[in-house]
Amino acid sequence: MVVVDYAALNVESIKVTLDEAVLIIVLDRAKQRNSYGGTLPTELIEMFTFADRDDRVRVVVVTAEPDAPAYCSGADISSGWSQLFKPEDEAEGETGALPWTHRINAIDVVVAHRDTGGKLSMAVYNCRKITIAAVNGHAAGVGMTAMQLPFDLRFVWEGAKLVFPFVRRGINAEATSSYLLPRLLGHSRANSLLLTGAVVSPTSPLISSLYHEIIPRREDVFPAALKLAKDLASNTSQISIAYTKGLLQHPGDTIEDNHILDSRAIRLTGSSADAAEGAVAFKEKRPPRFPDTLSKNSSPWYPWWKLVDVRHRKAKL
Amino acid sequence: MVVVDYAALNVESIKVTLDEAVLIIVLDRAKQRNSYGGTLPTELIEMFTFADRDDRVRVVVVTAEPDAPAYCSGADISSGWSQLFKPEDEAEGETGALPWTHRINAIDVVVAHRDTGGKLSMAVYNCRKITIAAVNGHAAGVGMTAMQLPFDLRFVWEGAKLVFPFVRRGINAEATSSYLLPRLLGHSRANSLLLTGAVVSPTSPLISSLYHEIIPRREDVFPAALKLAKDLASNTSQISIAYTKGLLQHPGDTIEDNHILDSRAIRLTGSSADAAEGAVAFKEKRPPRFPDTLSKNSSPWYPWWKLVDVRHRKAKL
Amino acid sequence: MVVVDYAALNVESIKVTLDEAVLIIVLDRAKQRNSYGGTLPTELIEMFTFADRDDRVRVVVVTAEPDAPAYCSGADISSGWSQLFKPEDEAEGETGALPWTHRINAIDVVVAHRDTGGKLSMAVYNCRKITIAAVNGHAAGVGMTAMQLPFDLRFVWEGAKLVFPFVRRGINAEATSSYLLPRLLGHSRANSLLLTGAVVSPTSPLISSLYHEIIPRREDVFPAALKLAKDLASNTSQISIAYTKGLLQHPGDTIEDNHILDSRAIRLTGSSADAAEGAVAFKEKRPPRFPDTLSKNSSPWYPWWKLVDVRHRKAKL
Repeated sequence: MVVVDYAALNVESIKVTLDEAVLIIVLDRAKQRNSYGGTLPTELIEMFTFADRDDRVRVVVVTAEPDAPAYCSGADISSGWSQLFKPEDEAEGETGALPWTHRINAIDVVVAHRDTGGKLSMAVYNCRKITIAAVNGHAAGVGMTAMQLPFDLRFVWEGAKLVFPFVRRGINAEATSSYLLPRLLGHSRANSLLLTGAVVSPTSPLISSLYHEIIPRREDVFPAALKLAKDLASNTSQISIAYTKGLLQHPGDTIEDNHILDSRAIRLTGSSADAAEGAVAFKEKRPPRFPDTLSKNSSPWYPWWKLVDVRHRKAKL
Repeated sequence: MVVVDYAALNVESIKVTLDEAVLIIVLDRAKQRNSYGGTLPTELIEMFTFADRDDRVRVVVVTAEPDAPAYCSGADISSGWSQLFKPEDEAEGETGALPWTHRINAIDVVVAHRDTGGKLSMAVYNCRKITIAAVNGHAAGVGMTAMQLPFDLRFVWEGAKLVFPFVRRGINAEATSSYLLPRLLGHSRANSLLLTGAVVSPTSPLISSLYHEIIPRREDVFPAALKLAKDLASNTSQISIAYTKGLLQHPGDTIEDNHILDSRAIRLTGSSADAAEGAVAFKEKRPPRFPDTLSKNSSPWYPWWKLVDVRHRKAKL
Repeated sequence: MVVVDYAALNVESIKVTLDEAVLIIVLDRAKQRNSYGGTLPTELIEMFTFADRDDRVRVVVVTAEPDAPAYCSGADISSGWSQLFKPEDEAEGETGALPWTHRINAIDVVVAHRDTGGKLSMAVYNCRKITIAAVNGHAAGVGMTAMQLPFDLRFVWEGAKLVFPFVRRGINAEATSSYLLPRLLGHSRANSLLLTGAVVSPTSPLISSLYHEIIPRREDVFPAALKLAKDLASNTSQISIAYTKGLLQHPGDTIEDNHILDSRAIRLTGSSADAAEGAVAFKEKRPPRFPDTLSKNSSPWYPWWKLVDVRHRKAKL
């Protein structure tokens, strides 16, 4: 287990607070319209790695200052897209001593570049705690993708302008958005959003199903997210969340596979101290006090899927 | 073919009627709030096995008495979750002479426990007839999962309180819900429902797309479901339904795979007596009278997918 | 690259115009209620093959005359379904010298028939340009499937009557609809539509998420679609669209796979002339003028998935 002193962290682009079991991350680059640059990507990735391993954290909330120009305005492309490509890509070489050659759809893919938005997407997606994006401002590009799609739940301000502008900028959908968005709300809506690059409102039927809740006033977005975060932090089992997220992300290929997996999972969770407390608290009509944590009570069977490390070999984060 | 005398069945927890080609199953455990216990699971599983094989049955409807305390209140956990684990699990042993070791995502899974909710889910999901849940009351836990998700269509009372409470009870999503729910309405809504454990109304945008129809008055739910059931029983081809369900559940991995599969299927169904009758009835603007049945007119090509039996070896139902 | 003189095409069932970069295809079988017959299927398939290869085409729009009896009334079954089966199927033989035997879900499938609707579905789906269906009239059967589902975006007239009638005609869902429809709007809605064969309105919650936009007046459907088509033709990169469509259709099996794929893609698109122009135009707040085209600027890496040709060997289109 990791125990982090969040108050003592040396970070520039975010403010971090552990409020009871909720890790609150506030973007702090308002002068740069909260663009996805500077130290922001690496600091966010580090926080989700910490949150995953720190037993005290049960929920993570990411938000912006409600008076910032945007929740996240995307990448800063004032000097073009080539800034996306980092020296560590070149250090790896295009076909040389790469960490990972992978057979995808029968084609060997050897590639050095690792999209920075995608690195964050994977850190959020693979975090075993509940993750919530409180989108209290406009969002564009990676502000829509890595900063929203891999989260479990999204709250949004009704007045936010939302856009996936990639096809209008000469690049392609990034940050694993082509994987996540159709799974979240179906290919019909994903096509409308990714292939038109249109600016939409949260209440548009094209995107509304992406959001857990749409909040009329901008300043109420984070409080609403925090209220649910505290409820979930107090009243859900850390193991239950991790296993249920695992089952949603790695359900097996067929219903029979899934039956075997969730049976195995429930045999483990159902015999736990958390399950005993959950049943007693329900019977006594009182809030539960779940004692189990991932570092103390995890089974060697979990995770049941193959973990793949796709980071650079020479320049791992 | 199986021909069952449903009126003579020795069942305790349900009432069963064959009304023309509609098999009506009414839950009959109102005193236990229609909890998923006693003989209910095995009786329901048996009925879906019968319905699958009995050519006279074209549609199955499951409902509750409209004045019962709930459509299905879930498992009875008054004595904890360990009641979920049965002696037959132990009889199989954890790593011993198991019926099925399966390589899922590159990990060999050996597991004895078989979740009872999941057994029903598979029986409903694999039934080749149309299945309808008429949810005329509150539903919780397995009352949301096995009792609703594997059905083809769901009707619901607008006033029903609906909840997937697993993460608030110390266990994980069960009964193949982590497989079925995201497929039914997308991962965005599935996350909101399974990871928060919130109580929702059928008209909530978080869950409304789960339902074929939302009915204002509780006593009108079953009649609405039965009306559609009778329409479908009279006017759809048993073979058409089975092949279309098969294609939806086993579509192939790519559009090309699917093209080959549905071409093969339509070569078979398109040459059938049902297709001839369907074309003539359409031309003559009269209801069709489809003669084909699964036991008499099925092709050796169907099913084209691999059937997997994941039941216990020593204690098969 | 293909350069087609669309004005000089010898076609019977459609009218074709290249309007700037938008290829407009108007169905011209109003006397046959725009049924999917005669030369219509082969002419449509040919147009999408041209559109895919002709660099001048950036968007394809299919529509009907707004005063036609239907957008597309489906197959003409006045002489039964057997008309679906063509001599070239027989020429191939059922188990003989077939072009393609394929292991789908562990079963070798050998099949001669190729569903004509599915042939069009694949031609539309695999077209690398933006495809839009402007459904300005009623639609049934293949008029719902091949004529709508494989398109990127669908506009529809609010008054249209829409129906997937297969199970009421004795056949099964065809034209790859069992693959496409659940992916577009989820299995809950796909079941409701394909298993009931009900006639629905575009505003029904069962189908509304299929449509990019629902237009009150019939005569406004095509103009609305054309307006978006022209916007996209002028302001999107041909390469960006092709790569983003490729990523949506072939995203990899896991988020890690997808990260590797979209990183590779963005390394290529991000270094392109289109990306440079996209960044500069954005900075200068002017519309972009994208210079790249698929035939001139494609990478040998694209497509990264395996292309499969499932056409008849002896009777290729």
